[in-house]
Amino acid sequence: VTPRSPAPERAFSVRTPSQATSVVVGAGTLGRLEALLAEVAPRATRTLFVVDAGVALPGVHQRWAGEWRLEPERTIVVAAGEAAKTREVHAAVEDAILAHGLFRDDVVVAVGGGAVLDVAGYAAATVRRGVAWVAVPTSVVGQVDACVGGKTAVNHARGKNLLGAFHPPALALVDVTTLRTLPSRDRVAGVAEIYKTGRVGDPELLGRLANRAATDDDPWWVEVVAAALKVKARLVERDEHDVGERRLLNYGHTLGHALETALGPQAVRHGEGVAIGMGVAAEVARGRGWVDREFVETQDADLVRLGLPTRVPLEPPAPRLLAIVQEDKKRRAGGLLTLVLPRDRATLAVLEDVTPSELEAAIAVRRERRVHR
Amino acid sequence: VTPRSPAPERAFSVRTPSQATSVVVGAGTLGRLEALLAEVAPRATRTLFVVDAGVALPGVHQRWAGEWRLEPERTIVVAAGEAAKTREVHAAVEDAILAHGLFRDDVVVAVGGGAVLDVAGYAAATVRRGVAWVAVPTSVVGQVDACVGGKTAVNHARGKNLLGAFHPPALALVDVTTLRTLPSRDRVAGVAEIYKTGRVGDPELLGRLANRAATDDDPWWVEVVAAALKVKARLVERDEHDVGERRLLNYGHTLGHALETALGPQAVRHGEGVAIGMGVAAEVARGRGWVDREFVETQDADLVRLGLPTRVPLEPPAPRLLAIVQEDKKRRAGGLLTLVLPRDRATLAVLEDVTPSELEAAIAVRRERRVHR
Repeated sequence: VTPRSPAPERAFSVRTPSQATSVVVGAGTLGRLEALLAEVAPRATRTLFVVDAGVALPGVHQRWAGEWRLEPERTIVVAAGEAAKTREVHAAVEDAILAHGLFRDDVVVAVGGGAVLDVAGYAAATVRRGVAWVAVPTSVVGQVDACVGGKTAVNHARGKNLLGAFHPPALALVDVTTLRTLPSRDRVAGVAEIYKTGRVGDPELLGRLANRAATDDDPWWVEVVAAALKVKARLVERDEHDVGERRLLNYGHTLGHALETALGPQAVRHGEGVAIGMGVAAEVARGRGWVDREFVETQDADLVRLGLPTRVPLEPPAPRLLAIVQEDKKRRAGGLLTLVLPRDRATLAVLEDVTPSELEAAIAVRRERRVHR
Repeated sequence: VTPRSPAPERAFSVRTPSQATSVVVGAGTLGRLEALLAEVAPRATRTLFVVDAGVALPGVHQRWAGEWRLEPERTIVVAAGEAAKTREVHAAVEDAILAHGLFRDDVVVAVGGGAVLDVAGYAAATVRRGVAWVAVPTSVVGQVDACVGGKTAVNHARGKNLLGAFHPPALALVDVTTLRTLPSRDRVAGVAEIYKTGRVGDPELLGRLANRAATDDDPWWVEVVAAALKVKARLVERDEHDVGERRLLNYGHTLGHALETALGPQAVRHGEGVAIGMGVAAEVARGRGWVDREFVETQDADLVRLGLPTRVPLEPPAPRLLAIVQEDKKRRAGGLLTLVLPRDRATLAVLEDVTPSELEAAIAVRRERRVHR
C-alpha cells in the first residue's frame, strides 16, 4: 500500500536557463517516487540509486524491492557525511553510473544527507557531460538547501566544495517523515538554515519557526521546508551561478565554514556554525551602525529558543579563523573580506569591503564566556 | 613588436544560454592574446597556461616571458594527444589551478591540440564550479572543432569522452600560422573535419576546399577555418547540449570513432576516421535509395583530392567495429543504431533506426581492396 500523505503537499518548479527542477515537499511523498520518476525522466530506462550509509529510512530497501519495483541491485552505498565528498567517491560513483549503463536521459537517484546529494549530483554532472538526477534529501539541511540550486561538489585539500559543477536535479523529492529518525541535535542544527533563509527573504517564516524546531509535526515541517525552498528557488532563478543576490544565502556561512573547518563536524554541525556566524555578521553590522543592539539581541533570542548556539567557541583563536576565511576567498586589496551583513533591520546585503579587524572585533564580542561553560 | 596580421581576420561570437564565446580567427592573432584576455576576462588577476608538450609554437615561451608579459612560471605542460585525456591529468590540472590561486573570474589558457583543450577546459569547468578559460588551438581539428561549443572531456576505460562537462571558453583564439609547423598528414587529416562541416551546413565551403589542403596560404586557412566555425557556432547556439541538430556534426564520426578506438591514433587520425566514416554513412544512405552512386563517388573524389582515405581498412572485422559502435550508444529495441546520413544530395539527417546489418553491408562495400595495397 502506498503511504498516504496526511499533510498538505507543496509542489513547484525552479527554472534556470540550463534546467528545470520539479520540487515536491510532503509527508509520505517517497511512496510516489516511481511515478514521479516517470514524469521527470520519461525516456529513462535505467536508474541507479546512490544512498548514504547513514540514511535513516527504515525499510527503504525492502520497499524498493517490493512495492516500488526498483531493482535493489541498482544501488550503491557511499559513506555518510563529508567523508563521501572526495574525488575518490566521485570517481567511484561515475564508474558505477557507467557500469550500470546509464545514458543522459537515464536517472541517478541520490538518497541521504546533503553530502551524498553533492557527490552523486556531481558524478551525474560529469558522466556523459550530464546524466539526469533526482535528489531525495533525508536531512534538514539536505531538504532546505542542498536539493535545490544545482550546486554539486566534493572537497579538496585546499578547501570545501572546491571541485564541482552546477547541475540541477530534475526532481527534488522531499519527504519530511524521514526527519523523524534524525538525532535531535541534527534536526535542531538544520533549522538554522531555515531561519537564515527567513532572514534572507521570508519574514513570515521567522514567525512560524518560533519554538518549534524539535517537533514531529509533519504539516509544520512541510510548511517551513517548502517556504525555505521557495525563497531559495527565487534567488536561484535570478542568479543561478551565484555571482549576485544568490550570495545572500551565505548569511552566517563565512564564519560558520571556518568553524566547521577548524573544529570538525562532531564539534560544530553545519547549521550550528551558521547560527554562530549569523551572530558575528550581525555584530559586524552593529559596529557599522547599520543595526542596533536590539536587532542583535532579538536574533540571538530567536536562535536560543530554537535550541541553537549563538556564541563563538573559545577555540580556535581569531587569527586562525581569519586565516581560514581568507584562504577561501579571492584576495582583495588590503585583505578585504566578502561578508553578508544586515544592511538594516529588514535587509541583508553582500559587502565586499569588510576588514579583517572588523571581523576580529565582532568575534571577540561574541565569544563564549568561560564562566558559562 | 606585435606581429601584424597579413590575412583578413574574422571575429564573431557564439551565444548560448549559459555563456558567450568570442571567436577570433586570423594569422598572427597570438600576438594579441594579452589584449584579448583583458577584454574577455576583465576581472582576472591570475592566469594559468596549460600547454601540450607537442605544441608547435616556436619561441612561444620566450614570447610569453617577453613581449606578452605573462609569467612563464604560470605554465603547466601536459602530454600531447589523447594521453592527456585521463582522470589523472584532469586532477593534476585542477590541482594546478587551485595551487596558482585562481578564482572564477581568473582565466585558464589552454594551448595546443584538441586534447589539451578538452582536458584543460574540463578542469576549468570543475574547479570552483567553473573558472573562465580561453582556447588557443594549434591543430586543425582544435581550430575547427574543439575550440567552440563547450564540450570538454576526458576518456574512461569504457569509452572516449565519457567524463566531462559543457563549459564554453570565454575566447577561442585561432592563429592559423601555428598550423605551418604541423606534419602534413595531420593538416590533411584535419581538413576532413572542415569538409564534414561544409556537408553539414555550408556548400560553398566545399568548393573552397578543392585541392588546397596542404597549403601554407594563410588567408585561405583563415577563410575555411572561420567558415567551419560559423557553421558549428550556428548549431551550438540552437542546440548547446547536443540533443538535436548539433548532432549533425557527427557525420562520419560513428564509424570513425570505432576505427580510432580499434586501431589507435597512429594508424587512424581522427580526421581520417571521419573521412572513412562519411563514406560508409553515404553508402548506408545509398542502400536506402536516398542518394545515388554519383553522390557517393563525388564525395569520394572530393576526399581523395584532399589527400584523405575513403576506404575502410581490412582490419578489424565488422563484428568488432559494430561492437565498439554499440558500446557507445544507448541500446534501442532491436539493437538499432543512431547515424548521421545524407537524406538527399543536399541534406543530412540524424537517423535512429539504422540496423546493424545495414552498417555491416556498407562496411563490406567500402573495404579496401587487397590488390590496391
